[in-house]
Amino acid sequence: MTSKLEERLADGYMQRYSGNPIITPADITPSAPGMEVVGAFNAAATRFRDEILLLLRVAERPITTDPDSVAFPLIEEKDGRSVLRRVEVRRTDPDVDASDPRAVVYKGCTYLSSISHLRLARSHDGYHFTIDPKPTILPSGLYERYGIEDPRISQIGDTYWITYTSVSELGITVSAITTQDWVNFQRRGVCLPPENKDVAIIPGILEAAASTGVGSSAHRYAMLHRPYTQSLGSTPDIWLAYSPDLVHWGEHYHVAGVRPRQWDSVRIGAGAPPLLTPDGWLELYHGANETNTYCLGLLLLDRTEPHRVLARSKEPFLAPSAPYEKSGFFGNVVFSCGWVAQDDGRIFLYYGAADESTAVAETSLAEAFAHLGLS
Amino acid sequence: MTSKLEERLADGYMQRYSGNPIITPADITPSAPGMEVVGAFNAAATRFRDEILLLLRVAERPITTDPDSVAFPLIEEKDGRSVLRRVEVRRTDPDVDASDPRAVVYKGCTYLSSISHLRLARSHDGYHFTIDPKPTILPSGLYERYGIEDPRISQIGDTYWITYTSVSELGITVSAITTQDWVNFQRRGVCLPPENKDVAIIPGILEAAASTGVGSSAHRYAMLHRPYTQSLGSTPDIWLAYSPDLVHWGEHYHVAGVRPRQWDSVRIGAGAPPLLTPDGWLELYHGANETNTYCLGLLLLDRTEPHRVLARSKEPFLAPSAPYEKSGFFGNVVFSCGWVAQDDGRIFLYYGAADESTAVAETSLAEAFAHLGLS
Repeated sequence: MTSKLEERLADGYMQRYSGNPIITPADITPSAPGMEVVGAFNAAATRFRDEILLLLRVAERPITTDPDSVAFPLIEEKDGRSVLRRVEVRRTDPDVDASDPRAVVYKGCTYLSSISHLRLARSHDGYHFTIDPKPTILPSGLYERYGIEDPRISQIGDTYWITYTSVSELGITVSAITTQDWVNFQRRGVCLPPENKDVAIIPGILEAAASTGVGSSAHRYAMLHRPYTQSLGSTPDIWLAYSPDLVHWGEHYHVAGVRPRQWDSVRIGAGAPPLLTPDGWLELYHGANETNTYCLGLLLLDRTEPHRVLARSKEPFLAPSAPYEKSGFFGNVVFSCGWVAQDDGRIFLYYGAADESTAVAETSLAEAFAHLGLS
Repeated sequence: MTSKLEERLADGYMQRYSGNPIITPADITPSAPGMEVVGAFNAAATRFRDEILLLLRVAERPITTDPDSVAFPLIEEKDGRSVLRRVEVRRTDPDVDASDPRAVVYKGCTYLSSISHLRLARSHDGYHFTIDPKPTILPSGLYERYGIEDPRISQIGDTYWITYTSVSELGITVSAITTQDWVNFQRRGVCLPPENKDVAIIPGILEAAASTGVGSSAHRYAMLHRPYTQSLGSTPDIWLAYSPDLVHWGEHYHVAGVRPRQWDSVRIGAGAPPLLTPDGWLELYHGANETNTYCLGLLLLDRTEPHRVLARSKEPFLAPSAPYEKSGFFGNVVFSCGWVAQDDGRIFLYYGAADESTAVAETSLAEAFAHLGLS
């Protein structure tokens, strides 16, 4: 272990960038007049040519000038196009409850107070980003009427698979879009039934078909996912599914559960798509406890049967402590959808801070394995 | 319309068999000493050689001689074998709530009061069945610790695909088993993430790949399924997924929702696998209302894009009215997992009555289409 690494380990196995947050809502041009950006966070990350791309979740809400009213957005289909509709209600209306900043309850139905789309930001150094002035991917269709959220990117060959959360009154589920050039995008439909989110496709081709005993394809893919389940004592845990073609998924396994009385006691979910190491797939995940504090942890998954967990963080790999993580739209949250490994083993770990801004920390494979007690 | 059909339509488009119920718990040999059978219901149905097979859900609970105590069963793995464990608790224990006959709440956790396995019954005439003395398929492994329930059978080529509900503390989900001879069975793993149930595979090969715009296989399959979802106003509705291989599923569509203030207002789910007709796939489904009354209805689905609904029952196709449907383990329930069409258009509709017994009614394609207002 180098002395530089030892120094870093004292800082929790990573170094937050001194210029954090690197992207805030004020940096984003709204998608339409009358809207204000309230979040630029939970970005997917990848390399494309000589740049690092972030695909940001941009959350917007209708501007209200009247402090006694609250507005919420909806997407409607009109003549085959997605149109944003604004619904404004009085806060004093007995049918309205706007006490949670994330949602408006109106006449017994819950609506999200903001609506999210996905937008690209580009950087040469990993710290300074130029943000596209317009949305890259807008919500569209029945399954996205309340928006699209929390993307992850996995590169498979020359195709980038973007998985994201689709939100509508039909439930919360996961859809996929592919691109090769970041200009043209192809919708791949709904991947999993509701309720599900936090999907990260394992970006390697697995040759594990024989060892799992089911399926017939020699080249297979896997995804981590997080079904929302609460019957019979079940909890929101991380599961994994296999696929021959990245569109159809089966052979579901329970991978890792919540841990009572620990920092990941209430719900967990996959973060960035895992990185392949000689010892297995290194996965970043988030966990929340009873006070809704979101931290990040690590899982090491088997190389050929990634539903098998080889190691797991005891303590958080990253916990909210900086001011931009402790307070914001929804405070005490660090939540990652993307990290980028450099050839030299350094890792840029991008994460959403307080459901509002985007931050970056630098870590490395060596630090990650040290955190897992495996170095 | 023949006068015989007119006569039948007066009886609600079907005729209950006068010998109903055809199978009751008393007809079943328990799977182990110390267990009593409390349900023989919700059977899958198919033809095999010159017989009609029913694959019954057999529910058992531990016998308790002490009226002050209640026992519940669990499956445990021991030396690679599934072993039934019995847990007995005092009804007066403040940590125990046994007020619902279907579940025991103990120390804040909910356990099913009975555990189900699957068992074959065989008939030459469709009315009189010989029941196997031993279980055909027992719960096994992590995902089935609380039992396996409500099977459906779809014949694809010479292989019978059995989908069923797997219940454990990891959640409620759907698994598949295949057989060709009803002697040897192959487990096909968990098909869908929790929470899901009521899976019926559409037993035809679809040539609709091109028209849905996703997927690349020319020969495709579909399944109806019922995710349990309640966020943001979503309800337990019927969805559909496509597959190239019957193991991996994707391209999920919302098919049909609950209907407020009607007989199917709270939850719906697919019943028997659909029958192919010249006008589309005829599907039997169940719907429950606020009082937990379960009725059966019909859906007509597009032949090549079965996620499109062409017609739907206004009134129930079958509603609980006979004494064995009105009262039993859980009264006011008719629930079907299987029907068998004869070459002459007659249909044997098998159904669970009051979560306890198995009954049969006779109907026909002509009556079903008349019920849908399409004749």
